[in-house]
Amino acid sequence: MNSKANNPLLKSWMPVSENSDFPIQNIPFGVYSDNKVAHHACTAIGEHIVDLYELSRNGYFDALNIPQEYFKSAVLNDLIAMGKTTTNHLRERISELLRDTNTELQNHKELHFLVFKKQSEVKMLLPVHVGDYTDFYSSIDHATNVGTMFRDPANALLPNWKHLPVGYHGRASSICVSGHSFHRPKGQTKPADAELPVFGPSKLLDIELETAFIIGKSTNMGESVSTEKADDYIFGMVLFNDWSARDIQTWEYVPLGPFLAKNFASTVSPWIVTLEALEPFRTKGYTQEPKVLPYLEYSGDRNLDINLEVYLQPEGGDENKIITSNYKYMYWTMEQQLAHHTVNGCNINVGDMMASGTISGPQPHEFGSLLELTWRGTKPIKLSDGTERKFVNDNDSIIIRGFCKNEKLRIGFGECRAKLLPAK
Amino acid sequence: MNSKANNPLLKSWMPVSENSDFPIQNIPFGVYSDNKVAHHACTAIGEHIVDLYELSRNGYFDALNIPQEYFKSAVLNDLIAMGKTTTNHLRERISELLRDTNTELQNHKELHFLVFKKQSEVKMLLPVHVGDYTDFYSSIDHATNVGTMFRDPANALLPNWKHLPVGYHGRASSICVSGHSFHRPKGQTKPADAELPVFGPSKLLDIELETAFIIGKSTNMGESVSTEKADDYIFGMVLFNDWSARDIQTWEYVPLGPFLAKNFASTVSPWIVTLEALEPFRTKGYTQEPKVLPYLEYSGDRNLDINLEVYLQPEGGDENKIITSNYKYMYWTMEQQLAHHTVNGCNINVGDMMASGTISGPQPHEFGSLLELTWRGTKPIKLSDGTERKFVNDNDSIIIRGFCKNEKLRIGFGECRAKLLPAK
Repeated sequence: MNSKANNPLLKSWMPVSENSDFPIQNIPFGVYSDNKVAHHACTAIGEHIVDLYELSRNGYFDALNIPQEYFKSAVLNDLIAMGKTTTNHLRERISELLRDTNTELQNHKELHFLVFKKQSEVKMLLPVHVGDYTDFYSSIDHATNVGTMFRDPANALLPNWKHLPVGYHGRASSICVSGHSFHRPKGQTKPADAELPVFGPSKLLDIELETAFIIGKSTNMGESVSTEKADDYIFGMVLFNDWSARDIQTWEYVPLGPFLAKNFASTVSPWIVTLEALEPFRTKGYTQEPKVLPYLEYSGDRNLDINLEVYLQPEGGDENKIITSNYKYMYWTMEQQLAHHTVNGCNINVGDMMASGTISGPQPHEFGSLLELTWRGTKPIKLSDGTERKFVNDNDSIIIRGFCKNEKLRIGFGECRAKLLPAK
Repeated sequence: MNSKANNPLLKSWMPVSENSDFPIQNIPFGVYSDNKVAHHACTAIGEHIVDLYELSRNGYFDALNIPQEYFKSAVLNDLIAMGKTTTNHLRERISELLRDTNTELQNHKELHFLVFKKQSEVKMLLPVHVGDYTDFYSSIDHATNVGTMFRDPANALLPNWKHLPVGYHGRASSICVSGHSFHRPKGQTKPADAELPVFGPSKLLDIELETAFIIGKSTNMGESVSTEKADDYIFGMVLFNDWSARDIQTWEYVPLGPFLAKNFASTVSPWIVTLEALEPFRTKGYTQEPKVLPYLEYSGDRNLDINLEVYLQPEGGDENKIITSNYKYMYWTMEQQLAHHTVNGCNINVGDMMASGTISGPQPHEFGSLLELTWRGTKPIKLSDGTERKFVNDNDSIIIRGFCKNEKLRIGFGECRAKLLPAK
C-alpha cells in the first residue's frame, strides 16, 4: 500500500504532541456529538477532532463525490460502503488539508471553530451500525491457557484449533462505545460444591483484551472472500473488550457455546483506524504447523505489531497497568479469519464486527484476561492502593489502549473504557 | 386475551376455503412486492394478500394514527415498534373491514384491484430487519436424541439442560424468506478415518424444524423481561428452517458452538402470525422437574398446540411428508426463553428473531431433523419416487408447514420453503 498519507516525514499545522495516538499519518474515522451537533463524521488530529461534515459542506471534498449527508449520519456505514477507493482518497485529502505545507484550510480561520473541537469536549458515538458480530478465539497462548485450566494441560488445544480459526456469533445489540458504564450481570451459576444452580450477580466478572475489524465491503450469500482479497473487505480496526462472566459461562456453555456470559455488554474504542494507516506495522505471522488447508494459506507479512495495554482504575483511584500484550501474538490473521468465515458462502455486510478473541502473549504479564492473569483467581494481582483483584470489582473502570510504534511513527487507537456498576 | 378478531364465528366476504391458513381470525402481517409495488405491508385472507398501504392511503386506518409511510417500508419494524395497543387495534380494524357484515371496503369495488392480489402472483419479502438472531435448544426429545447419538445414552442431557433454556447467537445476515435457493456450503470437515481435516462440499446437509418468535418491543441494556411480561415483548411467530451442515458442525463446534455449520442460510416463512391469533391454541406446558429457579417460573397454559410438518420435494417430483411434529413438545416456553435471554440485562430490539431449536416429538416420525429421523444416516427414509435420503440431496426442496386447529378454527402459517442447489 503506497499511501502518501503514511509518509512519516509529514507534519501537520495542527498541534500534535510526540506521543499522540493521532498524528497526521493516522486519520482514523469516527462519529461525534456535542451540544450543537447531533452526529457528524470526524477524524482526529492530536487532541482535536476534525468535523468532516463541515469540511464537506464547505466544499473541501467536492472532488470526491461523496454525498454530504453521509457525513451527518449517525453511523459511518454509508460512507464506508462507498468503497476503499473513495475512503482512501478521503483519507489522503484530509491528510493534505492538515499538512503544514497546505494553506487551504489553515488560512480559512473563520471555519476553525466549527471544524476543530477538543476531543475532551465532545462525545464520541458508536461509529458503525453493527449488523452481525463474530468473536474469534485466535490467540494460541489464550487458548492454551484456558485449555490447561479447564481441560487437560497435556492436550490444552482441542484437535480443530490449529486447523481453523475457531469462532462463534455474539450479540450485536449490546456493543457500546468507550465511555459507557453498565451493571454487573445477574444469572444462573452452579457453584462447585452445590447440587443445584443458584441465581444472583456474577461473582467472576472478567475482561477480554481484544481488537476487532470492521467490514468495509458487503458480499452476497454464496460468495467467499479469499485470504488474498480479504484486505479489500476490511475497513479498519478498533480495540474491543469482550466482558465475560466466567461463572455464568462455565455453567451455560455446553454444548452450544457462550451466551448470557458475554451478551450483556461489549466495549469498543470510537476511532476506526484504517488498515491503510496500520500498513507500516505489518509483521511476520505465526508459523502455522501443521500446514493449513489451501483456502487458509496466505503469503507475506500479514500480522500486525500493535502494542496493547489494559488498565484497571478503582473508583476515584489511579490507573493500574495490569496487562501488556501485542496483537502480533495472534496465531490466525484477520485475512484467514475472514476467508474462513465466508468459505461456506456466509454473507457479510458493511459494519459487521469481527473480534480477535482474547489476545494473550506467552509471558504471564501478557495474558489478556483476569482469568489467565490471576490463574482462575489463585494469584490475585496487587493494585497501587494496596487492594487485590481476582476479577473486576464493582465501580472499577477498565481501559484498553493500543498503539503501533517504530522509530519514525506512532499510530494509536485512543482508548476503550468502561465502568462496571453494581448489580441492579 | 379477549380479541374480537378471534371469534370463530366470524366470516369474511372475501373467499376463504375451509382448510385455508388464513381465515379472518388469523390476520398475519407480511411485506409483499410485485411489478407495481416495491414493498407494501400486507395481511392475508384466504388465497389473497391485502395491501395495507392502499387501505391506509384510502383512509381506512385514520383512527389508528399510524404514519402512512410505515405501510410502505421494506420491513415492518417501525409498524411493530408502535406497540401492541396499536398493532392489535390494526388487526381488529382489518378484521372489521373483511367481515361479511361490513360494507366499507366490500362496496368500494374500484379499490379492490389495488388492495387484493392473489398470493400466487406476488413475492413475499423478509418481513422484518433482524438485528440479532438467537437460536434455542428447547425440545427435550431433540436434545435427548442428539445427546444419545453423540455422547452418552445414559446421560443424554447435559447437567444444565433442565435448569436453563440453552441458547446461542446465530447469524442474522443469512436469514432468508421462503422461496429462496442457496448453494450447498463448502467447508472443513474431518472424516472419522482421516488423520487430517479435508475441504469440500458438506456431505451431511440437514434441516431443523423450528419456529421463531419476533420481538415487538425493545429494551435498554440492564433491563430484564419477566416471564409474566414476556408476551408484551413478543409480536408473533414464523416457521423457521435452521439449515445445518452436520459434518462441518461436528468438527468445528468445540468449544464455542456452531458457526459455519449454520450461518450459510436459514429460511423463515413470510407471514408473522401474531401471538394474539394463536391465543385460542394455548395448551399446558411440559412438567418441569427439577423445579426451575424463580426467574423462570410461570403460571397458566403457556405452551402452544401448533401442528408442524416437513415435506421433501426432489427436483420435479412430489412432495413427501417426512416429519409430523408439534410445537407443544417444547420443554421451555417462549416466555421462559425471553426471560432467560434478558435476565443478565441483555437488550433486545424490535425485529430480533429467537428460534426454538429443533422441535422433535417422542415418536420417530416426529423427529425434527434428518439427523434424528435417519438416526445419523443409519435408517434412510424412502421417498415416493423410490429413492432414499439420509440427508438433503442437491436440488431437493424442503417445505415446512404449520397450523393450529380445533373444532372451530384453523390458523396457519403458510409455508417455509427453500431449495438446495449444488455446491458452487
